Amino acid sequence: MANNNKNNESSLSVNHGVDQQSSINPERLNRFKGRKSLSLDDYVEGIKNGDRTILSQAITLIESTKAEHRELAQDIIEACLPDTGNSIRIGITGVPGVGKSTFIESLGNHIIEQGNSLAVLAVDPSSTRTKGSILGDKTRMETLANNDHAFIRPSPTGGSLGGVARKTRETIYLCEAAGYDTIFIETVGVGQSETAVHSMVDFFLLLMLAGAGDELQGIKRGIMEMADTIAINKIDEAAEKAVSQAVREYKNALHLYPETKSGWSPKVTTCSALTDKGIVDIWEIIQEYMQLTQENGYFKENRNRQAKHWMYDTITNRLTDHFYDHPAVKKQQQKIEQQVLNGELSSFQAAQQLLELYFDSL
Amino acid sequence: MANNNKNNESSLSVNHGVDQQSSINPERLNRFKGRKSLSLDDYVEGIKNGDRTILSQAITLIESTKAEHRELAQDIIEACLPDTGNSIRIGITGVPGVGKSTFIESLGNHIIEQGNSLAVLAVDPSSTRTKGSILGDKTRMETLANNDHAFIRPSPTGGSLGGVARKTRETIYLCEAAGYDTIFIETVGVGQSETAVHSMVDFFLLLMLAGAGDELQGIKRGIMEMADTIAINKIDEAAEKAVSQAVREYKNALHLYPETKSGWSPKVTTCSALTDKGIVDIWEIIQEYMQLTQENGYFKENRNRQAKHWMYDTITNRLTDHFYDHPAVKKQQQKIEQQVLNGELSSFQAAQQLLELYFDSL
Repeated sequence: MANNNKNNESSLSVNHGVDQQSSINPERLNRFKGRKSLSLDDYVEGIKNGDRTILSQAITLIESTKAEHRELAQDIIEACLPDTGNSIRIGITGVPGVGKSTFIESLGNHIIEQGNSLAVLAVDPSSTRTKGSILGDKTRMETLANNDHAFIRPSPTGGSLGGVARKTRETIYLCEAAGYDTIFIETVGVGQSETAVHSMVDFFLLLMLAGAGDELQGIKRGIMEMADTIAINKIDEAAEKAVSQAVREYKNALHLYPETKSGWSPKVTTCSALTDKGIVDIWEIIQEYMQLTQENGYFKENRNRQAKHWMYDTITNRLTDHFYDHPAVKKQQQKIEQQVLNGELSSFQAAQQLLELYFDSL
Repeated sequence: MANNNKNNESSLSVNHGVDQQSSINPERLNRFKGRKSLSLDDYVEGIKNGDRTILSQAITLIESTKAEHRELAQDIIEACLPDTGNSIRIGITGVPGVGKSTFIESLGNHIIEQGNSLAVLAVDPSSTRTKGSILGDKTRMETLANNDHAFIRPSPTGGSLGGVARKTRETIYLCEAAGYDTIFIETVGVGQSETAVHSMVDFFLLLMLAGAGDELQGIKRGIMEMADTIAINKIDEAAEKAVSQAVREYKNALHLYPETKSGWSPKVTTCSALTDKGIVDIWEIIQEYMQLTQENGYFKENRNRQAKHWMYDTITNRLTDHFYDHPAVKKQQQKIEQQVLNGELSSFQAAQQLLELYFDSL
């Protein structure tokens, strides 16, 4: 017994030392400390100073399911608002396999070399990432992840497209307040996320492959219609003839769409993110677009129209958050939902009961 | 002057007579009367007695933008609830040109010949019909429109997909209370409406054409995955070889999808709505499906799951209706939206201002 005790004490003591000195890295300690004690001012000041750890923690508050976290997040965003809006927001989409990560890394590094700073966000409602694959996401973009001028944040997980989109949009604000002048928003190019991303970006880039019809690539015509530029990627892997044919086909396809309100003629270009070929041209196209739309007023007009959309979206979100966070609703929601699933209550009666509980106790 | 006055009086008098005696038909007079004087009980009794004019008026209340109309509509629906749920709800989709109207007319007439009664509704958020094209819609299905056992109502116009879907779902309730035992819900087969319709029907039928790849027909794979049966229509116009090839291809495509929760293997069949060929078989397939899913419990389970979905949808709708109907919000909404469009307020600040006005005055 005495011996056992001694061994335990000894090993405990050793483990203790190991945990303190090597397992817990400074960022983890910081996060722990942050959750306990950072004030609103600490967050806002940290973000405005470009502190990436504090920026990450604030985004975690945006993504939290806890009402008090979301409230703090709202206060942080509000305080950051005067410093937002100064970035170029670029949506990047394409089906899995088109090489989005390599492309983002290649274009991202080029942009940073030009003296810019880059935040890479994502909208993917299907994402069920665990802590593990956050790392996975960062590993996919290794050079960017290790670059001081880049900040990579994977898609918020879980919830509806609307919820995921709202969180990403709020994250844009914080990244802008933290000084990132270019924001990439990646999406997966197969579902409805593109419309949500299109409603929060200035420029929408669609990546495609040569030698595969757009039906094979699973890209819907509605997504092509949103594209300000189509870039045919992986041209190092495709025959020259297939590439020029693809360029021709996409140019023809784009000509079928009505003229854009921006006054911009959507471009078709080619690149190899792997060899960096054509990447410089894409950045030039984006800058050309920015110049045109800033000069003709479309840039501002589009942002204001997006803001109107998000105003209504924010109202719906806040109304439903307020409802589902209400103690009277919380107490009965599960029970009433179960009664609906059992066929004991109609959807209508169930909604009515919860709404009465809510409005009666306001 | 005197002469002018006299002429005016005279022509006024003539016009007056014409308007009263020939332009206003009994239905219009009835509607006018209904809007002025029908009580909740009048509506509910009229609907339960299968009075088509009163049913139409009640649906108009559902579709109204006026808060007091919607409130009355809610009361009518609630009073009708005990008489709802007893129909077979069938979703019918397919791209424009696939022959949906002719198909609905052919299958609808067959169903009515079997002793059933049919309501035909639609979900088409892009619909911008005027009063004129209501008639147009009815003309498309002439024999059904003139059949006492059929009730045709075009898609509610305007607003978001969510709003249009909600109105159609509420219309289903009223049609069921009015005694219609079969409900068709038509949708256009190119956008996101299919998911909404799928969430309110028991059986989902996809119409296709032979000799055109599904990519050409603009049908997304997600829609094919929802189909309980694919019917290849217009086989009178297609070569036999093309038809059998299409059947083979769609069967192969359906086999790629995971097994359905309903225990049903989606079928591929052929028809010509113009010549009525194959229409009887489709009705048999639907009955086979109903028998299977009613026996294995999926029918009820699916409806309860749909009810849960609609419970949450109803809550969101009622919360936002309550918000936008509130006088404090109504008074400021336009002004604040304009400030957002002018770039004077961020989406966030604008939402915040309206939310404060609302919550402060509750």
